[in-house]
Amino acid sequence: MAANVVNQIHHVGMAVRDLDEALDFLKRVFGAEVIERQEFPDQKLESAMVSVGKSTFELSQSTDPQGLIAKFIESRGPGLHHISLEVEDMDTALKHFKENGLMVVGEMKIEKTRVAFLRPESLLGILFEIIQP
Amino acid sequence: MAANVVNQIHHVGMAVRDLDEALDFLKRVFGAEVIERQEFPDQKLESAMVSVGKSTFELSQSTDPQGLIAKFIESRGPGLHHISLEVEDMDTALKHFKENGLMVVGEMKIEKTRVAFLRPESLLGILFEIIQP
Repeated sequence: MAANVVNQIHHVGMAVRDLDEALDFLKRVFGAEVIERQEFPDQKLESAMVSVGKSTFELSQSTDPQGLIAKFIESRGPGLHHISLEVEDMDTALKHFKENGLMVVGEMKIEKTRVAFLRPESLLGILFEIIQP
Repeated sequence: MAANVVNQIHHVGMAVRDLDEALDFLKRVFGAEVIERQEFPDQKLESAMVSVGKSTFELSQSTDPQGLIAKFIESRGPGLHHISLEVEDMDTALKHFKENGLMVVGEMKIEKTRVAFLRPESLLGILFEIIQP
């Protein structure tokens, strides 16, 4: 089962102080192109999905000093925030993760895309997002 | 030029406290498979390249308390360490990065693979490795 639970990295998430400034940098230096930009009021953040060659990054800026991204930057500075792993079948994948002692949190559906996060992050210190596009 | 300077993410690098433990976790939970494991005495680290589906991670553990990875973990904890971006033509890419005000450091050749790192990391807080496989 574990052998094919994950298809590939879907995107790499970064926490940025200033979305416009970060986008300008990525465009100029790595030829990034904006795929989509939107605000998530519930999560107090604005994010942009950008392509860099065949890969995708998600840049998130807080829209509120109490937001999760603002708190992340306050404690660690801007930088890599999460790795999003694409799965074929969300239900099977989440069952597998739970059987392996992980907690699944923040399950949500954005249009047809299902998303969840894995905890604890303690062993590797990395927040993994699981996505079924 | 910038539009196609980068092909894709080559791998995502993580700093781990214990390579064996991290590998066990990634195998069990994400079905990771070890591609290659080797020690780099000059850099005081041991690393493993692993595949997770179609994507690749590099896990690095310090072999010395004074090593870069040990210092990274001491200051930030284990976690995401760098993003490696694959380029088609290293010389053209490095010229482009320099023209955009970035400093290229740590250039090296490991067998036929050329590697370099970009500084400063200050704007995004991310260490980018550039690789021509």
